[in-house]
Amino acid sequence: MKKAVVLLSGGLDSATSAAIAKSEGYELYALSFDYAQRHVIELESAKKLAAYLEVKEHLVIKFDMGRIGGSALTSDIDVPKDKLPDGSSIPVTYVPARNTIFLSFALGWAEALGAEDIFIGANAVDYSGYPDCRPEYLKAFESMANLATKAAVEGRSRFRIRAPLLKMSKSDIIKTGINLKLNYALTWSCYDPQPTVSGYAVCRRCDSCLLRTRGFTEAGLTDPA
Amino acid sequence: MKKAVVLLSGGLDSATSAAIAKSEGYELYALSFDYAQRHVIELESAKKLAAYLEVKEHLVIKFDMGRIGGSALTSDIDVPKDKLPDGSSIPVTYVPARNTIFLSFALGWAEALGAEDIFIGANAVDYSGYPDCRPEYLKAFESMANLATKAAVEGRSRFRIRAPLLKMSKSDIIKTGINLKLNYALTWSCYDPQPTVSGYAVCRRCDSCLLRTRGFTEAGLTDPA
Repeated sequence: MKKAVVLLSGGLDSATSAAIAKSEGYELYALSFDYAQRHVIELESAKKLAAYLEVKEHLVIKFDMGRIGGSALTSDIDVPKDKLPDGSSIPVTYVPARNTIFLSFALGWAEALGAEDIFIGANAVDYSGYPDCRPEYLKAFESMANLATKAAVEGRSRFRIRAPLLKMSKSDIIKTGINLKLNYALTWSCYDPQPTVSGYAVCRRCDSCLLRTRGFTEAGLTDPA
Repeated sequence: MKKAVVLLSGGLDSATSAAIAKSEGYELYALSFDYAQRHVIELESAKKLAAYLEVKEHLVIKFDMGRIGGSALTSDIDVPKDKLPDGSSIPVTYVPARNTIFLSFALGWAEALGAEDIFIGANAVDYSGYPDCRPEYLKAFESMANLATKAAVEGRSRFRIRAPLLKMSKSDIIKTGINLKLNYALTWSCYDPQPTVSGYAVCRRCDSCLLRTRGFTEAGLTDPA
């Protein structure tokens, strides 16, 4: 059974990307990051999704990106509210080099496992405009990966960055996941969790909440989460 | 004063690379990693070097690469002894995607700091044959970096991966450092530290020790460490 490393944040996109990898017959190795993100609660969703998707192994790597700063998700900058990204600028929720760091760990794990495929839920349609979600970036990362690694240089592996959602709208992503029997009740999208008496609630007003809501509406579905 | 992020392992090469950056007038931001390496003692050298080089800030990022495995430096595989790398194969001390992970964090920090230059002590002459020390790899990383980041995409920064030692022999590296008044007594190269009653001693037999010894011999100098 061929192996794939799947980046699994706990959000809707990465869950769908992982479900697609599973539907293609891969044995899944899920990789999540505890990077001092404001919405670290997403990792609880990642754990539930890893179990639901019957991954072979779920690895959570911990490091502190708050010490690097430069983002509303990892430092003391407010998360913007009530405004869908319009492509005019890259929002302050962008985290410097985050996908590059995530994909680098995925590459190291893929090499150690003997896997060639790395799945990422990057999307360049209904997204926040992050540069590290664009096809040209992912292609450049893949080229670099095949020069970086022993397995590639020795001709044993050819690493592929798979972004099956790249050109899909949010509603198409949701419909794809529903077809694959993915349970979106297990996912967490909100960037700015609101404390409640019993845990956390989504804010319904950040980029990520707004894109999610619009996606379910356009798909003609009710968000189960 | 222009800023540079310098990868500083505590070894001879990264110390020289940082000294070169300093001699070029950069304000230094040193970045080290506590990644569950067998020779974590190198971080004590990194701290001394950071002070010696009067860096503006020294950041040590911690994560566990032992959970990824695949290397003699991070898992239970013996470090090869008494054999200089001959280029016929990449040794088991190679750590999957290590430089890619290190450079990715450096990129994130550079972006957050408003720096454009990242210095790495990579060398493709007297080295262990690691794929992620070769010029074609570094060039590919740089191309990727300029697609990955908000600062590059918005035209505020053009990131450069600077590897000033890339084509130097080990003895030339040492002579360069000596000319820059670098104190090599502060550096640590050994991959396989040997416990002693008072701390740790170098093994004198791993790749890294052998390359270092040959470098000092060819430079006609005595290793002060």
